[in-house]
Amino acid sequence: MKGACNLSMAMNRESTEIALVQEYLRDLQLTICKELEVEDGEGDFKEDVWSFAGGGGGKSRVLTNGRVFEKAGVNYSSICGEQLPVAATAKRGALAKQPFTATGVSLVVHPLNPYVPTTHMNLRFIQVGDEKWWFGGGFDLTPYYGFEEDAVHWHRQAHKACDGFGESRYARYKQWCDDYFFLKHRNETRGIGGLFFDDLDEQDFDYSFRFVRNVGDHFLPAYMPIVQRRKEIPYKERERNFQLYRRGRYVEFNLVYDRGTLFGLQSGGRTESILMSLPPLVAWHYDWQPEKNSPEWDLYENFLKPRDWLRLGQ
Amino acid sequence: MKGACNLSMAMNRESTEIALVQEYLRDLQLTICKELEVEDGEGDFKEDVWSFAGGGGGKSRVLTNGRVFEKAGVNYSSICGEQLPVAATAKRGALAKQPFTATGVSLVVHPLNPYVPTTHMNLRFIQVGDEKWWFGGGFDLTPYYGFEEDAVHWHRQAHKACDGFGESRYARYKQWCDDYFFLKHRNETRGIGGLFFDDLDEQDFDYSFRFVRNVGDHFLPAYMPIVQRRKEIPYKERERNFQLYRRGRYVEFNLVYDRGTLFGLQSGGRTESILMSLPPLVAWHYDWQPEKNSPEWDLYENFLKPRDWLRLGQ
Repeated sequence: MKGACNLSMAMNRESTEIALVQEYLRDLQLTICKELEVEDGEGDFKEDVWSFAGGGGGKSRVLTNGRVFEKAGVNYSSICGEQLPVAATAKRGALAKQPFTATGVSLVVHPLNPYVPTTHMNLRFIQVGDEKWWFGGGFDLTPYYGFEEDAVHWHRQAHKACDGFGESRYARYKQWCDDYFFLKHRNETRGIGGLFFDDLDEQDFDYSFRFVRNVGDHFLPAYMPIVQRRKEIPYKERERNFQLYRRGRYVEFNLVYDRGTLFGLQSGGRTESILMSLPPLVAWHYDWQPEKNSPEWDLYENFLKPRDWLRLGQ
Repeated sequence: MKGACNLSMAMNRESTEIALVQEYLRDLQLTICKELEVEDGEGDFKEDVWSFAGGGGGKSRVLTNGRVFEKAGVNYSSICGEQLPVAATAKRGALAKQPFTATGVSLVVHPLNPYVPTTHMNLRFIQVGDEKWWFGGGFDLTPYYGFEEDAVHWHRQAHKACDGFGESRYARYKQWCDDYFFLKHRNETRGIGGLFFDDLDEQDFDYSFRFVRNVGDHFLPAYMPIVQRRKEIPYKERERNFQLYRRGRYVEFNLVYDRGTLFGLQSGGRTESILMSLPPLVAWHYDWQPEKNSPEWDLYENFLKPRDWLRLGQ
């Protein structure tokens, strides 16, 4: 991808900041894919290399029908364009219509076993014109069956990723995550949250990039122990059906609300890479309600409303 | 529902135009449900009556797991609100922030047999303030396996529904339908189209209402003969898998583009009634492509691009 973006501002920074971000994220993509393959034991990631009309391109890596992971996609992309898409500029009107580069890794993992949660991570670096840049991203977890122990572990890792970046960092980004991954028409969070941030250009590039690397490096320690704990729990049709039903919420969120998805579709991105986040199999049942005090009801009551998981884990 | 809307403009017209529309659409809902039940032979429509916070409400009728229809939903609603939602006012800025009533029937039928197409119909009457009103709606067909004979029949009925309403009526509304039900990120139409119209307030209320009734009355003659012709065709996993995959496009369209869905979610409508349109079971496969010259390929090549079906049928 290097050198593929012909816009001047991309070229100016290519050898410095952008190249550092590209290198880190490419490595992160490979590290995560490798770890997921080992955990799966059967599935392999297939790679598609694609180029973007405006300049740059990406590498989509997708594993399907594994033993543990029904579908896992880990995308890397670094694209340029003449005009920042609307979805990226809601709060940045002055930046619209300026050339941009966007470099990022985006992943979604849909496990087969309903006791293993779905997860999502995104890290991105956007530069507009010659001077303006920012990072965005985060990771979040979407369980089908709730385990307090897993939620506490997940949020402890999220907290650790924020260590050394100010007292309130975790609390602010945890709150942002709860607010962002919220389905207004369902009055539910998408899952138990994690971290979400955008417009990050604090202090200088090094400081912000160090934080982003911290988040990236804490993804596997946050997710894999949960996969290992839950992947062998036996399940039947009931749990599978509930998983397929809950996956519908994932689709609703991504297609109705998600800024990354809209950014991608609006910028004329590669549709298959953008919609790789959608689950392999999904069910909608009209007006379904969980039975009171059932494990499914417990998910709604105790996991799909924002909670202070760190305090719970003390 | 009658009398449930306390806004003055609703009351003024209650005994005349709105009441006529309500009566016709309630009857149409029942007629269609009855016919679908007879065709199905096993499934029954269950009715939910709901009320809307702003005033008015609706009756949702849903049939699930029938012999012929995996999921069929036929909604009637007549609601009032203090402010017309944004999705309804894109081209009508001056009307935003005025009280409105919206009365409509909306239906989606997802058959079990992949040889039977999915269909959608919507008819609506919107009134804003004391003077402004218009009709909108139409019907469209989404086959999984294409049959020219069915497409020609469908469009002949659409054409008949436009009889007596001007030479160009069918052509204009057919074009509008092709334009509207288009997935830009896939460069595909949702199906083979039909009729689509909005902002209809031609001549006077009687003229426009007569046209809308014509459309409503042609839905069953357009759809049922196709169901009858295809519902007993044997199919295997291959066809079922393709149906589940293509249903993904239906979800993508409804959640990303559909104005009716956005109108409903934005106006704080009943989520389960709005999303009743989503298929019962859906699959997404990363970067799937049909084999050249296969029946699945034929759908993409010959049915998911706008065509002049009437001319083809001559």
